Amino acid sequence: ATDADWRRPDPEDLVYLELPGGRVVMELATPFAPAHAANIRTLVRSGYFDGLAVLRAQENYVVQWGDPSADDADKARPLGEAAAGLAPEFDRSAADLPFHALPDGDVYAPQVGFSHGFAAARDPANDRAWLAHCPGSLGVARGNTADSGSGAGLYVVIGHGPRHLDRNITLVGRVLKGMELLSVMPRGTGALGFYQDAGLRTPILSMSVAADVPPAQRSELQVFRTDTEAFAQLVASRRHRFEPWFLDPVGRVELCNVAVPVREAPPATP
Amino acid sequence: ATDADWRRPDPEDLVYLELPGGRVVMELATPFAPAHAANIRTLVRSGYFDGLAVLRAQENYVVQWGDPSADDADKARPLGEAAAGLAPEFDRSAADLPFHALPDGDVYAPQVGFSHGFAAARDPANDRAWLAHCPGSLGVARGNTADSGSGAGLYVVIGHGPRHLDRNITLVGRVLKGMELLSVMPRGTGALGFYQDAGLRTPILSMSVAADVPPAQRSELQVFRTDTEAFAQLVASRRHRFEPWFLDPVGRVELCNVAVPVREAPPATP
Repeated sequence: ATDADWRRPDPEDLVYLELPGGRVVMELATPFAPAHAANIRTLVRSGYFDGLAVLRAQENYVVQWGDPSADDADKARPLGEAAAGLAPEFDRSAADLPFHALPDGDVYAPQVGFSHGFAAARDPANDRAWLAHCPGSLGVARGNTADSGSGAGLYVVIGHGPRHLDRNITLVGRVLKGMELLSVMPRGTGALGFYQDAGLRTPILSMSVAADVPPAQRSELQVFRTDTEAFAQLVASRRHRFEPWFLDPVGRVELCNVAVPVREAPPATP
Repeated sequence: ATDADWRRPDPEDLVYLELPGGRVVMELATPFAPAHAANIRTLVRSGYFDGLAVLRAQENYVVQWGDPSADDADKARPLGEAAAGLAPEFDRSAADLPFHALPDGDVYAPQVGFSHGFAAARDPANDRAWLAHCPGSLGVARGNTADSGSGAGLYVVIGHGPRHLDRNITLVGRVLKGMELLSVMPRGTGALGFYQDAGLRTPILSMSVAADVPPAQRSELQVFRTDTEAFAQLVASRRHRFEPWFLDPVGRVELCNVAVPVREAPPATP
């Protein structure tokens, strides 16, 4: 792989979640969920998340953060300019989305692969494509109605890919760095892993859009492209495990077991 | 479901891992890996694990425990009566194993389902069956050779099922209770998630076989049977999600997304 096999995400698509233990860096999948990505940017830029908390950590499922008082009209933090509910972006036309398909099939979708760097699924017969729930996927919490999500509540998958959520909820990106800050959070003992003891909630110091952060304070990350011959070779190496430890080279790979690499950007050369 | 749909695992198959934060209860899958299960019982009963530590926690992969000095012949704790290496039990004849097959296929195996309560896979054409790597699966660490595992090093899956490990390493059971004690361990920063800072290792207070523990100190758990009509109904309810939240009922389920329930045993009735 060469430098050309790596891309630098648009700083407008990078969101930082600042926790006491460090920074989680997420990339918004704007091509899949443009309205939700825009609403999240609005919320982040208004300071909506600053001082809120992680409310839920459910074993082998998700962590979720937002406003502890979201359901209390008197105490809920106002959403300001952001929409309180959005039309779902569960899936969209596949026509304008690049797709690097995997060859080994999938339990949940006619086709799976990668698009714009994200794990995705596709139904070519019906011209639909959607993001897939894998570890690190970032989603928009919602209530029982399709349009009840706004981005004011966000979740990240910390367990086996809950693919049954695909097309039932809007995914809007993924974690590029800092998963280990989310996945080790104490599990809540309430229903769905909500914390019954508010003292277990991890405070959110702030969220920000990378484009608004002074360059010296940004996390300069690069993400492996998924539309290259180098990526095809990476997939091949995950399908056929030729490392000495593997006695059976497997010959197959499932979507969520292909990790798209992320690296610190090399220092600029003069 | 009735009481008859639950089973009480044999106390000879239940192993307790006592950590400072509490107890992890594991069930050995003796029908799949009898030699490894027996060797682990021997190690546990000799006190081999008592005072050892969790050595490794790799994000979205495994936690592993054992002897920090295992690779140092002068300092390694002796294995006593236990074997230092065992012939692999990667798979075995499917003929004598019950199997409740799932209907939706699998990326890695010709058939997947449940056997003796464990997530498993099967190749009927070649009469082979094996345990599958899902969250909570308990495995026997090994080196580069097939017979280099003994049970002195054990791992539990804490991320998306690394199914490429199936038939490459001996699985020997699964966690029934206490996953949240393992999955929140700080991730190691060394290669493969090994702790470079020994201070991050979680000490193992002790391991024991439930049969050796006074009844009053046992964890009395029951596991949902996987050979019943009630289990078939459970699988159906995981395939077709009729809860109000699901706008699309899905209609499919992947092996690792079917959790076999565990409950505290109801109090004995006179």
